[in-house]
Amino acid sequence: MASSTKTPEMRKDTVFNRWVIFSPARSRRPSDFKSKSPANPNNSNSSCPFCIGHEHECAPEIFRISSNTNSDWKIRVIENLFPALSRDEELIQNTNLNPNPSFLTCISGFGFHDVVIENPVHSVLLSDQSDSDVGDVLLAYKKRVLQLMCNESIKYVQVFKNHGASAGASMSHSHSQIMGLPIVPATVSIRLDSMKGCFEETGKCSLCQVQCEELLINESKHFVSVVPFAASFPFEIWIVPRYHSSHFHELDDDKVNIVNCDHCIISSGHINS
Amino acid sequence: MASSTKTPEMRKDTVFNRWVIFSPARSRRPSDFKSKSPANPNNSNSSCPFCIGHEHECAPEIFRISSNTNSDWKIRVIENLFPALSRDEELIQNTNLNPNPSFLTCISGFGFHDVVIENPVHSVLLSDQSDSDVGDVLLAYKKRVLQLMCNESIKYVQVFKNHGASAGASMSHSHSQIMGLPIVPATVSIRLDSMKGCFEETGKCSLCQVQCEELLINESKHFVSVVPFAASFPFEIWIVPRYHSSHFHELDDDKVNIVNCDHCIISSGHINS
Repeated sequence: MASSTKTPEMRKDTVFNRWVIFSPARSRRPSDFKSKSPANPNNSNSSCPFCIGHEHECAPEIFRISSNTNSDWKIRVIENLFPALSRDEELIQNTNLNPNPSFLTCISGFGFHDVVIENPVHSVLLSDQSDSDVGDVLLAYKKRVLQLMCNESIKYVQVFKNHGASAGASMSHSHSQIMGLPIVPATVSIRLDSMKGCFEETGKCSLCQVQCEELLINESKHFVSVVPFAASFPFEIWIVPRYHSSHFHELDDDKVNIVNCDHCIISSGHINS
Repeated sequence: MASSTKTPEMRKDTVFNRWVIFSPARSRRPSDFKSKSPANPNNSNSSCPFCIGHEHECAPEIFRISSNTNSDWKIRVIENLFPALSRDEELIQNTNLNPNPSFLTCISGFGFHDVVIENPVHSVLLSDQSDSDVGDVLLAYKKRVLQLMCNESIKYVQVFKNHGASAGASMSHSHSQIMGLPIVPATVSIRLDSMKGCFEETGKCSLCQVQCEELLINESKHFVSVVPFAASFPFEIWIVPRYHSSHFHELDDDKVNIVNCDHCIISSGHINS
């Protein structure tokens, strides 16, 4: 069905109560992965548009973090050349497909899909970078989230990083992605409802309770990393801020440099008491 | 964490409101897949415990469907030798792990995990079988669901089939699995709640509404097969009964032989008006 639509759209599955993005552009995106290996070992790649000197091959830049060294830039936040959602679409409800929109609900594929190029050098992974450099990547996320928040049609912002071809990445140059969505995904609503229910029952925030000596991996002044008690995949790790806050973009700049990890990050989605 | 537990257990994730099964036995199960190819092309496999003549290598048989030919049996429903849940466990709430069970909730891994060997011959896939033979497999599912229903600790029965190693199958001999669970999975509750909401809003069953000429693949007297309007993966197909019924085990025996497909099957989980 996706191939029959020229522009992206979001369709509602009324049986499972979830939205699905249909994006023909995504199927046209290139890949520089030759195999399922997690990363291309080359130090440079002349055909990689994310490398320094290839900026003109990318979609427009949104902002950059300047470098203190000879390099023109340290981090670039750019538009995705093959976006799942389009910032040029109008946010409209499409009820033409069926006279009964309750069963076949469709909205235009309005939204934002950005790329965060985490450093200018092809072979440098996020885990190779210094604490301070990783902190700058997290602050770039925060800055872009704050920008997207200003658009009143955006209801949820998702920051994510796919590491390696088998995780879904199509480009080996270290990067993350940020999506601004016109809806709150069902998985997020379910999590919030679950945490609210837990708070109403116990008076406590379930994310504040994840610390447990048996499950602790590491801890610092502002964060703990744990194996979740009911982990659903091997090596699952949550990094949770010690301070209680509902939003990732409320992260204090001076706390960010304490975090440095090459695993996974979850936003500070605590429940406010 | 799973490796530290000797018997299976179910842990509640209070952040995402879902149960996760921890089963050390599953990691010990063998595999006869040599590669990620969808099926072993050999007509027979002397080391396959699902082949005729190897019944003694399997866990106990629950029932069999007799064959009209020279073969001893046509279908066997057996216990899984490496079960995710154990029928020998008592259904007990384990609150020893933490004084506050609201955050670290754990129950014993009580439940049923069965295997349906769909035919005695190693190389015959479900899609190779006749309409009538596929119908018999569906009726074996129904018979086992009706048996599991009699156990009042079982709250949900899941019938599923993994085709090929990349889908999670460890044995190439054509088989399906049936799990009897002591809880209703969150994904099922969400689907039921969504369909109830849709019914309250429109007075109609959303599963009865999936028929749409644009999305229709095939239809017969009692069933339709469709691409769901908001499909979430390529080639996703739903086979939906035309008659309105809330449970798979309410399937009429005489209607089953109309179904023959090598794709996917969803249970007739309509919402009753």
